[in-house]
Amino acid sequence: MTLVIVNGESVASDSRKKMVQSAAALIGSQGLNATSFSDVLASSGAPRGSIYFHFPGGKRELAKDAVRLTSEQVLAHMRACSASSAKEVLHHFVALFRHVVEATDGAAGCAVAGVTIDIPASDDELLDDAREAFHSWAALLAEQLEAAGVVKESAQGIATIAVASVEGALILCRAERGGAPLDAIARQLSLLVESRN
Amino acid sequence: MTLVIVNGESVASDSRKKMVQSAAALIGSQGLNATSFSDVLASSGAPRGSIYFHFPGGKRELAKDAVRLTSEQVLAHMRACSASSAKEVLHHFVALFRHVVEATDGAAGCAVAGVTIDIPASDDELLDDAREAFHSWAALLAEQLEAAGVVKESAQGIATIAVASVEGALILCRAERGGAPLDAIARQLSLLVESRN
Repeated sequence: MTLVIVNGESVASDSRKKMVQSAAALIGSQGLNATSFSDVLASSGAPRGSIYFHFPGGKRELAKDAVRLTSEQVLAHMRACSASSAKEVLHHFVALFRHVVEATDGAAGCAVAGVTIDIPASDDELLDDAREAFHSWAALLAEQLEAAGVVKESAQGIATIAVASVEGALILCRAERGGAPLDAIARQLSLLVESRN
Repeated sequence: MTLVIVNGESVASDSRKKMVQSAAALIGSQGLNATSFSDVLASSGAPRGSIYFHFPGGKRELAKDAVRLTSEQVLAHMRACSASSAKEVLHHFVALFRHVVEATDGAAGCAVAGVTIDIPASDDELLDDAREAFHSWAALLAEQLEAAGVVKESAQGIATIAVASVEGALILCRAERGGAPLDAIARQLSLLVESRN
């Protein structure tokens, strides 16, 4: 990332963004609880003092921002989709996760899942953020499938199983240390959408 | 559970089993790292000293046993399936997880997933155990789908997306605090198997 440093604020926000990015990658690959501030500092190269400056709410605030950043990155990838067929729409969605899994031999996962599994079930605010992230992906995917000719009701169902099966496949990929489960679910999602056309 | 106490060994093994059962439930609902020996003792009612007696290998040994127990319980549930149609086979598989999610408003998850996400990617032995668990479920499900008339190649693909989408749906259910995502993927799995018949 190239950053033109204009003033103190842009340095600060770039440093904060790097920390959130590092936290998202770490939470995705080892869960929230195993991810320490020290890990985030080591991975982002940020100075120790900056974590308290940027995240006065502590690790929970960092987790909240990691969920938001991951969600925005998934949506941005999806919005860049130029596919015209429903199969291509699904392929584009899965490809983002496939890329991450391939680059890490399956070790990398999804920070939204990492946070959802590791936070206490009583943390309504963070669970709402996670739910909102999953919903927004499924809603955009359903919209794109509909635009590609799938009827509305089918599009919503296929979008939900696409998000669920990608999240589950990431766990299977981690256990397998490779991307085969994601390839397998991608094929089934294609067949599912074919059967509705 | 009713246990006829015959000798010291059966008391010990029952106590050990309770601890593994408690660990599996806790890991499923809050991940491995947040699950402490104290939580397991409180939940299982076992005396403090017993944890070191039963698990000299520490928390990792408990995690290993929780993966094994969960895997065996899923397989035992699956083997009790008397369904004759492929749709019923899938329904029976999903029903086990649906039951757990319903009883906990979505909070409970799968201990195999909780361990897979939270252990270091370098722990080959535990990752192998998790992979073996997921594989054994998919293999038995494929076998049951085949016995219900689905052709072999389709059965394997459907079994893989069934396992992946159930695991992912459990995460979505936790975020939603309810079972709707599991219901949604169950409907799509039924449609998928219908399209192959």
